Amino acid sequence: MSLADGDTDQVVSAKDLSRADIETVCDRAAEIERSPPDPARHAGTLLGLLFFEPSTRTRMSFESAIKRLGGDALGMGSVESSSAAKGESLADTVRVTEGYADALVLRHPSEGAATMAAEFVDVPLINAGDGAGQHPTQTLLDLYTMRENTDGLSDLTVGIMGDLKYGRTVHSLAYALTKFDARQHFISPESLRLPRSVRYDLHEAGANVKEHTDLDAVLPELDVLYVTRIQRERFPDENEYRQVAGEYRIDAAGLDAARDDLTLMHPLPRVDEIAPDVDGSQHAHYFEQAHNGVPVRMALLDLLLDGGRS
Amino acid sequence: MSLADGDTDQVVSAKDLSRADIETVCDRAAEIERSPPDPARHAGTLLGLLFFEPSTRTRMSFESAIKRLGGDALGMGSVESSSAAKGESLADTVRVTEGYADALVLRHPSEGAATMAAEFVDVPLINAGDGAGQHPTQTLLDLYTMRENTDGLSDLTVGIMGDLKYGRTVHSLAYALTKFDARQHFISPESLRLPRSVRYDLHEAGANVKEHTDLDAVLPELDVLYVTRIQRERFPDENEYRQVAGEYRIDAAGLDAARDDLTLMHPLPRVDEIAPDVDGSQHAHYFEQAHNGVPVRMALLDLLLDGGRS
Amino acid sequence: MSLADGDTDQVVSAKDLSRADIETVCDRAAEIERSPPDPARHAGTLLGLLFFEPSTRTRMSFESAIKRLGGDALGMGSVESSSAAKGESLADTVRVTEGYADALVLRHPSEGAATMAAEFVDVPLINAGDGAGQHPTQTLLDLYTMRENTDGLSDLTVGIMGDLKYGRTVHSLAYALTKFDARQHFISPESLRLPRSVRYDLHEAGANVKEHTDLDAVLPELDVLYVTRIQRERFPDENEYRQVAGEYRIDAAGLDAARDDLTLMHPLPRVDEIAPDVDGSQHAHYFEQAHNGVPVRMALLDLLLDGGRS
Repeated sequence: MSLADGDTDQVVSAKDLSRADIETVCDRAAEIERSPPDPARHAGTLLGLLFFEPSTRTRMSFESAIKRLGGDALGMGSVESSSAAKGESLADTVRVTEGYADALVLRHPSEGAATMAAEFVDVPLINAGDGAGQHPTQTLLDLYTMRENTDGLSDLTVGIMGDLKYGRTVHSLAYALTKFDARQHFISPESLRLPRSVRYDLHEAGANVKEHTDLDAVLPELDVLYVTRIQRERFPDENEYRQVAGEYRIDAAGLDAARDDLTLMHPLPRVDEIAPDVDGSQHAHYFEQAHNGVPVRMALLDLLLDGGRS
Repeated sequence: MSLADGDTDQVVSAKDLSRADIETVCDRAAEIERSPPDPARHAGTLLGLLFFEPSTRTRMSFESAIKRLGGDALGMGSVESSSAAKGESLADTVRVTEGYADALVLRHPSEGAATMAAEFVDVPLINAGDGAGQHPTQTLLDLYTMRENTDGLSDLTVGIMGDLKYGRTVHSLAYALTKFDARQHFISPESLRLPRSVRYDLHEAGANVKEHTDLDAVLPELDVLYVTRIQRERFPDENEYRQVAGEYRIDAAGLDAARDDLTLMHPLPRVDEIAPDVDGSQHAHYFEQAHNGVPVRMALLDLLLDGGRS
Repeated sequence: MSLADGDTDQVVSAKDLSRADIETVCDRAAEIERSPPDPARHAGTLLGLLFFEPSTRTRMSFESAIKRLGGDALGMGSVESSSAAKGESLADTVRVTEGYADALVLRHPSEGAATMAAEFVDVPLINAGDGAGQHPTQTLLDLYTMRENTDGLSDLTVGIMGDLKYGRTVHSLAYALTKFDARQHFISPESLRLPRSVRYDLHEAGANVKEHTDLDAVLPELDVLYVTRIQRERFPDENEYRQVAGEYRIDAAGLDAARDDLTLMHPLPRVDEIAPDVDGSQHAHYFEQAHNGVPVRMALLDLLLDGGRS
C-alpha cells in the first residue's frame, strides 16, 4: 500500500501502513483541523457502513467524517435485520453494496474478513475492525494524537498498559510504533502479557521492547502512557479480576511521578481504568483522542477517494 | 435560560423556558412555516442523536428538522449496540460524541440524565425526554399547536385528560401553561390524578387549576382538550383498565357538547383514547400537532445554533 | 396509475404498472445511468423509510437513490423501537410520518398494508414489499436488467425457476412479463408450483405460460433465466429440502447447454442456488441486477416527486 502516492484504495491492516503513509495521513489530518476542506470536493460521495458488530464511536466518527467532507453515509441497519441473517455470504454482501456506495467501511467479528472482502470489490474498502485482527484507523488516530502532543513520532518512549493479550488496538499500535523506532514498555499482569506471536513479530521487526508487571519503575520515563480496558470476562474469578483491575487503575495521585508533559491515552470506552479525578488534569488526552477520529478518518477518506478516482 | 437573547445553549427542562422563550420559539416556528429558511444557513451542521430509549416520532422529527435546516444528523444506532452496553458512563458518552457533532439531542430512561449530561459538554444539548422527567420540545410543540389554533396563549381554558399521574408530557405542559395564566382543568380517574408534588408546585406557581373525574361538566368551556394515553400496564387488573379506558375515551358523539372551535390534541401514539370517527372532524388537531414537531424543532435548533456560534 | 403522465403518486402494485409506465421508468433509469441528474433538482427532498420488516438491499438502495438524486432519507429505526410496538395503528404511523417527509417508502409484513396506507396519506407512497403481496420496484429493476441485456422487453423467452409458490418477486414479475407478451417457462418441483390463483390470473390475462419440473428441455431456448431461492423452512423434512435444492442448483457446467447470451438473474440473497463458479461467467448478471436498484429507484422517485409537485 502506498497512500502517499494515491495508488491504493484498500486499508485493511495497520501492518501495511508504511511510515510515509502514516505521516501522510497525519499531515492531512492536521491540515484539515486547521482549515476544513471545501465540502463541494466530496459532494455526492456515499460511504457504505457495513457494521456486522456493535460500534458507537467508530461508526459515528466515520459518519461524521464523510459528512464533514461534504459526502454522506449509508448504513445497513442492524446485523439481525441484514441479509447475512438470511444466509448470504460476506462476499455477496460486499459485492451488492458496492453498487450502492463509492467506498465501504467494514467491521466484522471474524479475523481476516476485511482481507477477504477487499478481494471482491472495486471500490475503496476500509477495515474498521475484524475480530481479534486489525483496526488500522484506530492506530492512525492513536498515532496522530501522540504526534500532536509530543515533538513528533520519532524517538518516543511509550508505555502500553492493561490487557495486552486480547486487545487488537494494542497489537496494531505496537507494530506501528516499531516503524518509528519507539521505546515500548508493556505493563500488564502476567496473565495478560502480549501473546508470544506478537512478541516474536515485534522482535523480528527490530522493536525496542520491555515488559513489566508494575508501572512505577517506568512511569517517569514515559512520553505517552496508553491504557486499555481489562475486561471482566477474561477472568474466571471475580475476585481475581477485581484485584488485577485495581492494581492497574490510574488516578491523579498515581501520576505524581510522571513527567509534566506525559500524554495519557485510552481507546475508550473506559470502565474503571482511569479515575474521574484525572479527567481535568493536563495529562488527560483520551477525549481529544476520540475526537481525533474525525479529522484522521476525514484525511484517510480524502486520500482514498482521490486515489480511487484518479 | 434565555433563548430570546441567544445566550444559552442547553434546553433541559420546560420549567426553565420563560414565557418570552416560548413566544420566541413559536414566533420563529411560524416564520419558518411561512417561509423555509435558506438551507445554506446551517449547511454542514451535524446534530448528534443520542437515544438511549426507543422513539419514532421524536427522533424522526429532530432528524427532519435539522435536515430541513440544511444540516444533517448522526445516530448512535441501537442502545444494545452502544458503548453504554460495554459499561461506559453517560458522561463519557456525551464527552466523546460532542467531538463528532455540533449539538446533541439526548433521550435517556433516567430522570435527571440531561441535566447531568449538560454539565459535561460544551455544545448545545437538548433534552428529548429523561424518564419520568422533562420533555421540553414536546411542550413547545404542544404550545405552538394551541397558539396556532386559538387567539394566542393568553387567557386559554385547557382541559387535560387521561393519565395525569405518570405522563411527563402532562406535567411539563401544566408548568408551561401556568406561565400563561391558563385556566387548567385536569380530568382523570382517581387513581391517575396529578401527583401531589406536581399539584403543590403548580399551586406555588399560582396556577389556576381544577380537578375532575368527569369530562361532561367542563367540556363546553374548553378552548383546548388535551388527551393522553392510559397505559394498560398501570393497572394490576385488566377489567379495571378496560373500564377506566372506556370512560375516558373520546368519540364524535361525545364532542357534541363541545364548542365548535374546540382544539382536540393528543401527543400520540394513541391506542383507543380517541375514536377514528373524530379524525375527520374540525376538532382533530393531533396529526397537525405531531407535524408541528418539525417547525418547532427547526426553530429551536435555529435559535440554539446561532446562539452557540455567536 | 399513469406514471407516464405524471398524474399519480402511489406505486403500490406491479399489477397497476402499465407497459407504458414500465418503459417510462426504464427510459429514465437508462438516462440517469448515462448522465446523473443535477443534485440541485431534488435538494431538500426527504424520503421517509418505513421498514416494518428487515431489509438490507431494498432499504439501502432506496437510501442510495434519494441521496444520489440530491435528497436525503429519514429512517424510523428498528421495528422494536417504533411506535407500532406501543400499539399504534399503521394508519396513524403513516399520517404522522408524512409530516416529516416528502414521500414514503413502506415495507410491511402484512399483505395489503401499502394499499391501506396509501389511502391515508397525501404524499407519494411506494410499496417496498407487503408480505406475500407486491414488491413493484423489484419488478421494475428486474425488467430493466432484462431490457438492458437483451433486444428489449418484447418477444422474450424467460425461464423462472425455484420457489414459485411463495416468492412474491416471481408473481409480480410474471404479471409484468405478460404485458410484454413474453413466453414464460416456470420450472419448479411439484410442491413449489405457481399457486393456482396466479396461474388463473395469468391465463385470464392471456399469458403464454408453460410449466416444467426440469430445466434441461427448456434451457437452450431461454433469453433470460431467473432463479429464486428455495427456502429451507418451506420443507418439513431436511432431507427433502436438500434433494430439491440440489436439483435446482445452477453451476457453470449446467449452463453449457444455454445460449451464449443467456442472461442469468437472481433477486438475491442467494444461498446455494447459483454456484460461485458461475459468478465470473458472461451469464452472471445478478450483481448488476442488484446495482440496478439504484438507477431504477432514482428514476421512479424522480418521476413521482415531479408528479407530486406539479
